[in-house]
Amino acid sequence: MVKEKKIRTDVLIIGGGVSGALAAITGKSFYLTKRFVLVRKESQSIDPCSIPYVYGRLGDTGQIRVSDDALNRMGVSIRTNEVTSIDQINQICETSDGVEIYFDKLILALGSIPKIPDWLKGLHLENVFTIPKDYPYIEKMVAALSDCRKVVIVGGGFVGFEVAYELGGPEREVTIVESLPHLLGIAFDAEIGARAQLILERQGIDVICGMEAIGIAGDTRATGVLLSNGKTVDADAVIVATGYYPQTSLAEQAGLPIGETGAIPVDQYMRTVNPNILAAGDCAETRCFMTGRPNQIMLASTACAEARIAAVNLYQLSAIMTFTGTVPIFSTAVGDTAFGAAGLTEKRAKDMKFGIYTATYSGIDKHPTTLPGTHEQIVKLIVSRNSGMILGGEVVGGASTGELTNVIGFAIQNRMTVNSLLTAQIGTHSLLTAHPISYPLSVVAQTIAQRLWNVSST
Amino acid sequence: MVKEKKIRTDVLIIGGGVSGALAAITGKSFYLTKRFVLVRKESQSIDPCSIPYVYGRLGDTGQIRVSDDALNRMGVSIRTNEVTSIDQINQICETSDGVEIYFDKLILALGSIPKIPDWLKGLHLENVFTIPKDYPYIEKMVAALSDCRKVVIVGGGFVGFEVAYELGGPEREVTIVESLPHLLGIAFDAEIGARAQLILERQGIDVICGMEAIGIAGDTRATGVLLSNGKTVDADAVIVATGYYPQTSLAEQAGLPIGETGAIPVDQYMRTVNPNILAAGDCAETRCFMTGRPNQIMLASTACAEARIAAVNLYQLSAIMTFTGTVPIFSTAVGDTAFGAAGLTEKRAKDMKFGIYTATYSGIDKHPTTLPGTHEQIVKLIVSRNSGMILGGEVVGGASTGELTNVIGFAIQNRMTVNSLLTAQIGTHSLLTAHPISYPLSVVAQTIAQRLWNVSST
Repeated sequence: MVKEKKIRTDVLIIGGGVSGALAAITGKSFYLTKRFVLVRKESQSIDPCSIPYVYGRLGDTGQIRVSDDALNRMGVSIRTNEVTSIDQINQICETSDGVEIYFDKLILALGSIPKIPDWLKGLHLENVFTIPKDYPYIEKMVAALSDCRKVVIVGGGFVGFEVAYELGGPEREVTIVESLPHLLGIAFDAEIGARAQLILERQGIDVICGMEAIGIAGDTRATGVLLSNGKTVDADAVIVATGYYPQTSLAEQAGLPIGETGAIPVDQYMRTVNPNILAAGDCAETRCFMTGRPNQIMLASTACAEARIAAVNLYQLSAIMTFTGTVPIFSTAVGDTAFGAAGLTEKRAKDMKFGIYTATYSGIDKHPTTLPGTHEQIVKLIVSRNSGMILGGEVVGGASTGELTNVIGFAIQNRMTVNSLLTAQIGTHSLLTAHPISYPLSVVAQTIAQRLWNVSST
Repeated sequence: MVKEKKIRTDVLIIGGGVSGALAAITGKSFYLTKRFVLVRKESQSIDPCSIPYVYGRLGDTGQIRVSDDALNRMGVSIRTNEVTSIDQINQICETSDGVEIYFDKLILALGSIPKIPDWLKGLHLENVFTIPKDYPYIEKMVAALSDCRKVVIVGGGFVGFEVAYELGGPEREVTIVESLPHLLGIAFDAEIGARAQLILERQGIDVICGMEAIGIAGDTRATGVLLSNGKTVDADAVIVATGYYPQTSLAEQAGLPIGETGAIPVDQYMRTVNPNILAAGDCAETRCFMTGRPNQIMLASTACAEARIAAVNLYQLSAIMTFTGTVPIFSTAVGDTAFGAAGLTEKRAKDMKFGIYTATYSGIDKHPTTLPGTHEQIVKLIVSRNSGMILGGEVVGGASTGELTNVIGFAIQNRMTVNSLLTAQIGTHSLLTAHPISYPLSVVAQTIAQRLWNVSST
């Protein structure tokens, strides 16, 4: 049998992560007659957001595997191979097995790889891990960690935060080291980060904030993490969770420009400078919803919106499907407490030179508050001072936190003002939400509306 | 001491329910220098939404009492009395103790009273109850029901539905009789109502739909409910939960017009024909968000939005605080299953002559779906066929249902189209929401967007 050397497809997607798979599924459902091929390096797709839970709740690493059923059902052809080059002129991708794939449209969903801090020494040692979206690697890491009694996590963003909580427990000493003054420092303001820290500390996890990790000690195997204050935290294993970097080498090699954030610039329809090549997900450079400046947000919420937009606009621009910029929206949970954020934090808004008002309300997520199973619910709102436009919100609460954060996300994306939020109709129920009178979004909206009111009447 | 016979206030609020209290608190916080007086019949305010839970979860009827702390803290003066007349010309209200209250602005928050079906015979019998928002009555009813082994509830709207579930259990036979073909018939479509029925039946509650209750049997005390098919369901007690009627006699007496729905017509700022007299909550007639026609929605979400709008616009119209019409948004829960609805149902949209598309998706509210504590999550979306505008949504799910319903409510209020919903940024998290690829709102939006797409490209 002669090996197939040339393949022709209408749409080629490179990358099997969330954005690649979603772009393929959505694209095929809108352009039923087109052929879709998805090429990915990994034989097994995973759900990256579930990685932290392999240590605890999920019990079994296999649970993070995502089946190819949806892709197969739609008739997307999957090839497990690495794409080695892209020829823009002839519209051909070559894969590592020497196959040439001719495409009409190409979607780059190249994803991101763990950011390796070059100032952190000792990364080559045994039992030092990063968290790539790579199933065999995660399997090996989980096996190795099961014997480790002392684990240090470098990085207190949401991956480090979730992994620390899930790994912690009576049988394991866990320490988290974060260079910023507080945990979850990019997504949340300091007072919310302090609450996140408290939850880890109550679980017996040691949290060291405002401290740089400068190296990993050990001869062949990690024995500790060196801090900038000269001290060493003992460790049997070290997890480096200091963020991700867009994977763009293939695009660069193909001659596509790379933006100031290190990602691939795209227009509102996710098209690169070459309108037949689109990019979506972590590898795509997007623009801030508030300022229009290039930014680089690597969240599933952003990746999915981008993948859907790229897919729908592949062959025909749909004017109403515009993507007016990135609003970071995300949530996380440890134990029974969840944290959610949408849009700008107070700090980020100030850094961006917005004149703002903020208000925070702390209540209970059910009513009456004496019902069993209630949870404290804190909502912080960040509003543009003169326009009254909602710039961001942060939530701490229970099981409804993810969707409450999405309510705020919708307020921002629809450019609602604090006055329209104050007078919006909001459903409430004893067992499901706060009381209608003290519904947290309404209360913070009112506090800020009053301050705007005083300004406008003087 | 001579009894005070004349009082002067800037703002007078009649009614101590949710809308009255919220209008007073909000108004006073915006107009700090004005005097606010609230007159109510009841010495004790309650949270009406919590009434169904006095039988089960709350354990103690007292839990539904709402304190006057917030009113007192704001400096709202409370008077426990009945207002017997309103003099529009001189702007005076008289109370049952002969006191005259001179007002500058009046907010009618008269609420609603249980609808007494005149075709239902035997309502005068002992152990026949309605569910008014009246604390002493509720206390007496709870005490009486504790000895009853067989309870029949007439009416399968959300009050009847919640009360049936909470009253049911091994020690009590509960039957619910509903004249519509399914439970929750006004707020949900038939297939969602069928799910609600299943949950009650699994709890051993007998559900009889599509059947009229025509009378209550008994000599002095209720012994059963007579059905239109000639059968009788035995009962020690009967609860009539067939809806509420706006309480407007005071307004009528004062010469204010009453609208076609039986409530007090108001403009977008909740002003009656007399701009110094406003109305909010169940007694106010509002207009449908979709058609502008008068309607009568008696929900806390509507009442609270109305109360806030009335309060903010008391002395100065704030152009951006317009209320563009009523979007019913509400949620309910029995056991660990919650139901939420926003906007129009499929049936209602068709009755109103909308050309529509609908889509329903059934998934799981966390991811991976093997996580402990997951719940089935069903979302139905109703979209205007030509404009693509979102008209309504229905949700069945777990603890996040209330806020997910609010996400849909915000989509409707912001007049989002199905295309903008499909490409909206939505935060997801393993422990808090469905998977980003199969997030239910995105999936139903995609299904409908494809159908619109086919229409527009043919």
